[in-house]
Amino acid sequence: MIAEKLRKIYENSHADALFIECDFLRRYLTGFYSTDGYVILDGEGCKFVADLRYLEAAEKQLKGTAVRVVEGSYPQALELIHGKKTLGIPYPFIDAAAYERLGKDFTLVDCMPALKDAMLYKSEEELSLIGKACDIAEEAFLKLLPEIREGMTENEVAALLEYNMRMLGASGTSFETICAFGPNGSVPHHETGDTRLRFGDPILLDFGCKVEGYCSDITRTFLFGDDKKHEEFKRTYDIVLAAHDLVRENLVAGMTGKAGDAIAREHLKKFGLDKYFTHSLGHGIGLQIHEFPNLSPRSEQVIEDGMVFSDEPGVYLAEKLGIRIEDSMYMKGGRTHSFMKKTQKNLLVL
Amino acid sequence: MIAEKLRKIYENSHADALFIECDFLRRYLTGFYSTDGYVILDGEGCKFVADLRYLEAAEKQLKGTAVRVVEGSYPQALELIHGKKTLGIPYPFIDAAAYERLGKDFTLVDCMPALKDAMLYKSEEELSLIGKACDIAEEAFLKLLPEIREGMTENEVAALLEYNMRMLGASGTSFETICAFGPNGSVPHHETGDTRLRFGDPILLDFGCKVEGYCSDITRTFLFGDDKKHEEFKRTYDIVLAAHDLVRENLVAGMTGKAGDAIAREHLKKFGLDKYFTHSLGHGIGLQIHEFPNLSPRSEQVIEDGMVFSDEPGVYLAEKLGIRIEDSMYMKGGRTHSFMKKTQKNLLVL
Repeated sequence: MIAEKLRKIYENSHADALFIECDFLRRYLTGFYSTDGYVILDGEGCKFVADLRYLEAAEKQLKGTAVRVVEGSYPQALELIHGKKTLGIPYPFIDAAAYERLGKDFTLVDCMPALKDAMLYKSEEELSLIGKACDIAEEAFLKLLPEIREGMTENEVAALLEYNMRMLGASGTSFETICAFGPNGSVPHHETGDTRLRFGDPILLDFGCKVEGYCSDITRTFLFGDDKKHEEFKRTYDIVLAAHDLVRENLVAGMTGKAGDAIAREHLKKFGLDKYFTHSLGHGIGLQIHEFPNLSPRSEQVIEDGMVFSDEPGVYLAEKLGIRIEDSMYMKGGRTHSFMKKTQKNLLVL
Repeated sequence: MIAEKLRKIYENSHADALFIECDFLRRYLTGFYSTDGYVILDGEGCKFVADLRYLEAAEKQLKGTAVRVVEGSYPQALELIHGKKTLGIPYPFIDAAAYERLGKDFTLVDCMPALKDAMLYKSEEELSLIGKACDIAEEAFLKLLPEIREGMTENEVAALLEYNMRMLGASGTSFETICAFGPNGSVPHHETGDTRLRFGDPILLDFGCKVEGYCSDITRTFLFGDDKKHEEFKRTYDIVLAAHDLVRENLVAGMTGKAGDAIAREHLKKFGLDKYFTHSLGHGIGLQIHEFPNLSPRSEQVIEDGMVFSDEPGVYLAEKLGIRIEDSMYMKGGRTHSFMKKTQKNLLVL
C-alpha cells in the first residue's frame, strides 16, 4: 500500500500505534500474505514483523515499498509498541484474550473505522484482482452448464462448480456455494443439500471465488428445461432482472446506499413484489465477501468512485419460487459498471 | 449433548451463566447447526435462542433433548441472562467489541477451559462422525491416484482431491489442502501452487474434510514414478513410517502428550533425524482441525479413552525432501487405534 494511504489510516485511528494480528488486515496493509505475523503502523511508518518462515519472502516482495520488514514474532512486535499510550486494534477482528492482554499496558481504541474508511476505496490493483475473481466465477459457470444432468444433487452441482473455479486458478471459494433446486430457491440462504434435480426445475446458484485474497460474488437463476409451468416464474424473472439492470443504469456517484437500494425496491413495488424482496440490495466486496458500502434501506453511505458492491435484487415466494440475479459492480467515472461480461442475464433455459 | 455433560461444563466454568455466540460452540453444546443464534447455559439448563429462520428446524431436532429452544435474537438472549453477575464467554472465540459490550453489565470470565475439558472426550456419536470424515478422505485419495498425470499442477491435484471429497458427501475441506511436489515437500506448510508434476517427483498430500462439522486429517507421501534417484528418500520414508507406527503400538492411556511425542522423536533420533522433525507429533481433532490434546515435547496432557488426535511425524531436509505420514487416531480400551483403514502406508509408487 502507498505511504500516503497508510499515513491516513494511522491519523484517522487516533492512536499512537496500530497493532494488527489478523490475516486479511495484514494482507491489506502490506500486500503480503502470511498465516502469521504482526503489522505495526505508527507515525514513523509501517512495519511487518515476520518469523523465519516468511522473512525472506516478505523482504523480497516488500523491497522498495512503504513497509519495513522486521524479524521476530510476538515479543519483537511488543517491543516495537513499547512506550506507546493508546493502541489501535480492530475490535471485530481481535479476540477477548488478546484484548485483555493488551488492555493491561495500553489504552485501547478501535481502529476498524479508520481501516473501513480506507477499504471502501479500491486501488486499481484491487479492482483488477476482484475482476479476475469475477472472470473465473463466470467461466466456471459457463463450463458447468453443459455438465448439469437430471438426478444430480445440489451438493454435486456445487462441487463441480467449485472444482471448475479452482482449475481456472482460484485459490478457493469466497463463501459456501448456494445451490438450490426448485422451491428450495425460495429460502434466500438455502443450505445446499441432497435434493435431486428434475426436469423443469429452476436452479439458483450463488457463488464466488478468491484470487490473491480478493472475492467475487455472483448469482444466476435459470431453468433446467422448460416444462411449460413457468409463466409466473418467467414474469417474475423479467421484473427482477429489470430491477437489477436499473441499478446499473441509474446508480451514480454521490447517491447513498439507501438510494441505490430504492432503485430496485421501487421497481419491484410497481408489481407488488417489494414485500418479497426480504434482504438488502447489496454489500461491499473486497478481501472479505461482506464489506462496505451497504446498499440497504438504512444505509447513509455515499457511493463513490472506487467502491465495489453487489447488485442482487431477489424475490422469494415461500415454498414456491426464488429468483435472485447478482453481479459484482464497481463505481468508476461516476457510473456503475458490472465486472461480469461473459454470462447472460436474460433467462437461460438449459 | 446429555444433561450431565452440560451441567459439568456449567459448574466448571464458575460463572452464573455461559453466553455463547460462536458457530461451532453452539453446535457442540446443542448438536444443532445454524449460522446464527445464542446458547445460554446456567443452573436451570441449556437454552438455544433461534430466530424464525431456524426455529422450526431447531424445535424438531432438539425435541426430547436437554436443550430448550426459545424464539428470538440478541435482545431475547440478553433477557435470559438479565440479573446474572458473572458471565462465562469463550475468550478465544468472541471479539473485542462483544467483550466490551457485555463487560459493561457483567463480570466476564473465560469459559473456554471448561469447554475444552469437555471437548477433549468425544462421545460415540462424535467418534462416528470423525470416522466418516476419515473414510471419505481415504476414499477420495484412492479415487485421485489413477487420475494423477505428469504436468498437472499442485493446485489441480488439490482441486481434484477436494472435488472427490465433496462428491463422496463431505460438506467441505477441514483446512486448506497442502499439495507439494518434489522438494516443495520440505516446507511443512507449503502453499499449494502452480508447480507442475514431473516423473519421479515425490508428492506430499495433507488434507481432510468435514462431516456434520467434524474434521478428518491425513497426510500421505508417495512417489510419482521411480526414477531410481530415491535411495535416501526411501530409507528416510521407512524410518518416518516406523516412527508413525510405533506411536500407534506404544501410546497407551495414561501417558502424557509429551511421552507420545517422544515415542516418534526418540525413534528418529536413532538415525540422527530428530533435528529435522521440526513440529509436534500431533494435535486434537474434532469440530476444529486443531483441538486438544497436544502431543508435543511440552504437553503434560494425559491421553485417555475418547480422545482423538493426529499422529504425524515428519522429516524435512531443506530444498531436498519432505516426508510426513499422518493418520487421525483415537484412544479406546486404553490403546491407540487409527481411523484410517483403506489406504496403505508402505511406500506407494505410482
